[in-house]
Amino acid sequence: MAVTKLVLVRHGESEWNNENRFTGWYDAELSEKGRGEAKAAGELLKKEGYTFDFAYTSVLKRAIHTLWNILDQVDRPWLPVEKSWRLNERHYGALQGLNKSETAAKYGEDQVKQWRRGFEVTPPALDRDDPRFPGHDPRYANLTAEQLPTTESLALTIKRVVPYWEETILPRLKKGEKVIIAAHGNSLRALVKHIDGISDDDIIGLNIPTGAPLVYEFDENFKPVKHYYLGNAEEIAARAAAVANQGKGK
Amino acid sequence: MAVTKLVLVRHGESEWNNENRFTGWYDAELSEKGRGEAKAAGELLKKEGYTFDFAYTSVLKRAIHTLWNILDQVDRPWLPVEKSWRLNERHYGALQGLNKSETAAKYGEDQVKQWRRGFEVTPPALDRDDPRFPGHDPRYANLTAEQLPTTESLALTIKRVVPYWEETILPRLKKGEKVIIAAHGNSLRALVKHIDGISDDDIIGLNIPTGAPLVYEFDENFKPVKHYYLGNAEEIAARAAAVANQGKGK
Repeated sequence: MAVTKLVLVRHGESEWNNENRFTGWYDAELSEKGRGEAKAAGELLKKEGYTFDFAYTSVLKRAIHTLWNILDQVDRPWLPVEKSWRLNERHYGALQGLNKSETAAKYGEDQVKQWRRGFEVTPPALDRDDPRFPGHDPRYANLTAEQLPTTESLALTIKRVVPYWEETILPRLKKGEKVIIAAHGNSLRALVKHIDGISDDDIIGLNIPTGAPLVYEFDENFKPVKHYYLGNAEEIAARAAAVANQGKGK
Repeated sequence: MAVTKLVLVRHGESEWNNENRFTGWYDAELSEKGRGEAKAAGELLKKEGYTFDFAYTSVLKRAIHTLWNILDQVDRPWLPVEKSWRLNERHYGALQGLNKSETAAKYGEDQVKQWRRGFEVTPPALDRDDPRFPGHDPRYANLTAEQLPTTESLALTIKRVVPYWEETILPRLKKGEKVIIAAHGNSLRALVKHIDGISDDDIIGLNIPTGAPLVYEFDENFKPVKHYYLGNAEEIAARAAAVANQGKGK
């Protein structure tokens, strides 16, 4: 039986994760620790003998640099890479840039949890005049007015991630190519929800740790058979818990 | 009059340039100095206000890493990048890995100058069983048997670079996109010869310095109008002279 493997990696810690701020489409750089996580993910993939034919990432540098670090570690910087806004983090609307703990103190933990984890809940929208609106950024020049978000729920994130999976990534897997995707907490949750058919309620509790390669195996009909993280299980669980706790007030 | 600008950059010094060895398609890493040159090229482009829509590079990491450093400096790591073997350095055949000075001492400076600078002269060919033959490398898996070189002259390098220029790069310029190409001494000489209609004899004396952005301006009919290096002229001349002297025996 032919097994197809797909590797997903959430970017390492960014300078804004570090400051516990809502990042979204803000183009935060990897922190020193984040670069270390990315390299470690690459070393692990190399040690386990993973090779790739094609790589996908977002247009945000914390994911791109995570991918570059991995490609260097597996000695394939020459791999073709497609960067798409569709793999970007969820857009956090007017919350972008705010500190998560302060936001929780101001609006209450419950409201913040809803904004962070409510499936169809959108944070307050950005004004289109706001400098944070993606329409002002040249990397989104080719997007239609309808595609440019002012805020996104996880449900809206899924609506832009899944067509990219169906039309671009999955056909490449079906051609037999080995693919790695370096992306973000919520764009990866969107993918995983779609692949595994996770319910709207259950996806809320699913946290993807940073820098841990997540391997999906598919059968010959491209049904998911199993998935697992590479690396030390305890360390991965601790990192997933750290993500879950970020929204809590101090 | 609409002017189209194209930026060419030769990769910074590699670990093998440093050792004065024939590199060709060997995948040498940038040296510390080379990374500095790449960053400086990026800083210069940023200072002069250059932006880009698309980037081309080879499948060799010294060119790819030069490009990555530049993209980071101009804050456009999200730019789409196409990597092609057609922009690789000239393949140096069986000379790959040999020290240039030792080769000059053994075969004579004149022979080495012919191998390095003779327009149609090919160095001794690699055997297809040789581990250095590109047919053994997964990044060239899609090349036909005819495309896989065992050695190349500058003339043969031009034969694979020019179709890529005509069919891929030039059409993008014609769409109005701003393009940067990070490549190698001989693939850039091939391009420059073609663009400027330089004779087979004159191209031999033309040396492109490492890490200095070379700007070509084209008129509305895509005829080259002028070209110039960005940066300090004396420094650039010194670097071009250093390249010219590498083949000399000690």
